[in-house]
Amino acid sequence: MSVNLSAPNPAELYPVSGVRIGVTEAGIRKANRKDLTVVLIDKGASVSGVFTQNRFCAAPVQICREHLASGAGIRAMLINTGNANAGTGQDGRTRALRTCAALADKLKLSPQDVLPFSTGVIMESLPIERIEAGLDSALADAREDNWLRAAEGIMTTDTVAKAYGTQLMIDGALVSITGISKGAGMIRPNMATMLGFMATDACVSQALMHQLATELAEGSFNRVTVDGDTSTNDSFVVIATNKAAHATIASLDSPQGQALKAAMLDVAQKLAQAIVRDGEGATKFIAIRVEGGKTQAECRQVAYAIAHSPLVKTAFFASDPNLGRILAAVGYAGISDLEQTGIDLYLDDVHVAVQGGRNPLYREEDGQRVMKQSEITVRVVLGRGDAVDTVWTCDLSHDYVTINADYRS
Amino acid sequence: MSVNLSAPNPAELYPVSGVRIGVTEAGIRKANRKDLTVVLIDKGASVSGVFTQNRFCAAPVQICREHLASGAGIRAMLINTGNANAGTGQDGRTRALRTCAALADKLKLSPQDVLPFSTGVIMESLPIERIEAGLDSALADAREDNWLRAAEGIMTTDTVAKAYGTQLMIDGALVSITGISKGAGMIRPNMATMLGFMATDACVSQALMHQLATELAEGSFNRVTVDGDTSTNDSFVVIATNKAAHATIASLDSPQGQALKAAMLDVAQKLAQAIVRDGEGATKFIAIRVEGGKTQAECRQVAYAIAHSPLVKTAFFASDPNLGRILAAVGYAGISDLEQTGIDLYLDDVHVAVQGGRNPLYREEDGQRVMKQSEITVRVVLGRGDAVDTVWTCDLSHDYVTINADYRS
Repeated sequence: MSVNLSAPNPAELYPVSGVRIGVTEAGIRKANRKDLTVVLIDKGASVSGVFTQNRFCAAPVQICREHLASGAGIRAMLINTGNANAGTGQDGRTRALRTCAALADKLKLSPQDVLPFSTGVIMESLPIERIEAGLDSALADAREDNWLRAAEGIMTTDTVAKAYGTQLMIDGALVSITGISKGAGMIRPNMATMLGFMATDACVSQALMHQLATELAEGSFNRVTVDGDTSTNDSFVVIATNKAAHATIASLDSPQGQALKAAMLDVAQKLAQAIVRDGEGATKFIAIRVEGGKTQAECRQVAYAIAHSPLVKTAFFASDPNLGRILAAVGYAGISDLEQTGIDLYLDDVHVAVQGGRNPLYREEDGQRVMKQSEITVRVVLGRGDAVDTVWTCDLSHDYVTINADYRS
Repeated sequence: MSVNLSAPNPAELYPVSGVRIGVTEAGIRKANRKDLTVVLIDKGASVSGVFTQNRFCAAPVQICREHLASGAGIRAMLINTGNANAGTGQDGRTRALRTCAALADKLKLSPQDVLPFSTGVIMESLPIERIEAGLDSALADAREDNWLRAAEGIMTTDTVAKAYGTQLMIDGALVSITGISKGAGMIRPNMATMLGFMATDACVSQALMHQLATELAEGSFNRVTVDGDTSTNDSFVVIATNKAAHATIASLDSPQGQALKAAMLDVAQKLAQAIVRDGEGATKFIAIRVEGGKTQAECRQVAYAIAHSPLVKTAFFASDPNLGRILAAVGYAGISDLEQTGIDLYLDDVHVAVQGGRNPLYREEDGQRVMKQSEITVRVVLGRGDAVDTVWTCDLSHDYVTINADYRS
């Protein structure tokens, strides 16, 4: 089940010159399942990534950080599902490094040129033999127009593959952008989502890549939540292959930088929202917009309190306008000097609460009408400033419990 | 459904000299339901309370704070279920005050001598006419041995009434302690639980009462959570009627003060734990003990991260030792300098993780055995200090979703 989420449109998944992708079934956890993906990047690309802030970050996340920091040119990525290689201690690091070395060996690269990614069950040993055995088949599959298979290859509890793309002109040159993501549970990205990868053939200096990756994550993956559980493996990597026929972008504030970032953010937001639309058990897609805060940070804090409240989420599942639960969540969001008399609440166009109390004009049937929709905007006005922020989430249904009570079995 | 929770033992519910309780059916939201309780307190009692930190605190919570701060001797409490009188703005305050005045009028008291408490649906108008109409019947029912009816009278989604008592000797005088609580959902007390009331005939100076109430709440209600939703109405009130035949206790550090506090804390913990055992949809009672922290606060922070994780809670519901989810929650608890290599994890006596990785001696069937129990202790050793703290919670089941998706219908 997913909320208004379609399978990717192949015509929109533009090949990115300088990026080839291969996918195979390596039998990592289950047979007959695409579970191993290699991404081959031509020499000369600019690459950066942002990673989970979870202190129990997985071994591959640690290795990614080290390889990106080493200054080596990143030439390949190796992504497996079925096993997260998290909570695996020193042995997990050794195994992640060994898979990098195995792929590097076949490509005549150094292990530092490879970024490893794992997603799946936590605290089980990564089956490196199966990964190594699958490399040749994945490499044989590598081609530029393989983004859809890659999106399928990184799915775990996802029900729909997630891939979007766009094109724009920069200084007369056609630029392509394509990205994929995965994730449905353990979703409350903190710097990035479970897994997200974007590539463009635009020309972007390496010096700018970290800023670009961070700002894209801030505006997309860092504003979604399914269950509030920040994953051990969140990773978001952005690749610019520098193949397009325009001058290298050296500032995101230049017209070219702004245009590229806007186009990439559009794709990143679609990828991030797709994770919420495919949230485990989700039946509704909910945007929570908090206005009138003193700072954007406090707006986001209030939005996340609402988005994480099991009571709010079950009310959405039931289409029950039990909206006092939203006010309660605003109240415990941790804004210590918040005055309830300054607060208004809207559900789409319906004005539910005025100055902290029920709007005398509010009618239950109006709330009911909006709650029955599959897409709902909650708007909270804090009445204490001009800041605004938005977070996207989903409801909490029986299927969430079923999926997570049965995940390993 | 509740976890190893029995109906109160009437023999243990000691009448407290100086406190009489009356309960009636006032039809506040539904007919044929005990929903209105009056507590009459003899002159000369010491009374204090602690209340929710939710900024959207309900009107009666605001009034309670004001009446306690006014220095008037508290002589009565008025408790209704069916309506929380929260999210009701200025009109909610007016209505709460009017019910205080109505009861005060009948008792020849001032309205400031009355504490009002409401619990139930948020953002609906308090039906004061029904409350006023029920007062005579409630007052006619008032007697000292009425604690069980009081526990029943404050229930909402609770499936079992919650009441405990004990007795102790202080300087040769027999002292009785009895308390009641209610709550099952919207439970993550921050200062106090949904509703908790304790009375003793011990002699305690008014100057000491706030410290006593705060320390009791800290050691009991402030360590439980069901769904992480801090209520708008959390209230915990402690009454000492000063009727027992011992000298007034002026310090909690005196032998008499320590003995009284220990006995009262025992009752308060049972009341708090009963709320978790009766947590909406709960099938398991889980103690989360975090050791080896630098501070007690960081231990509690980690314990709550585990206790609030929907993924951890659904794994307990499924009896699935998917214990990497616990490590992930430790990782995102917000301890920014936490080193995963210092962390050990135990499930009861089973040593699951060593230094951040799976214990080589850990066997899945051992984890499975513990997970099937109805009472489980999760023990996390942070390895960075000597502090310890414990939080009590329950699992997240289908019934939680059912109860909260259907609550108002």
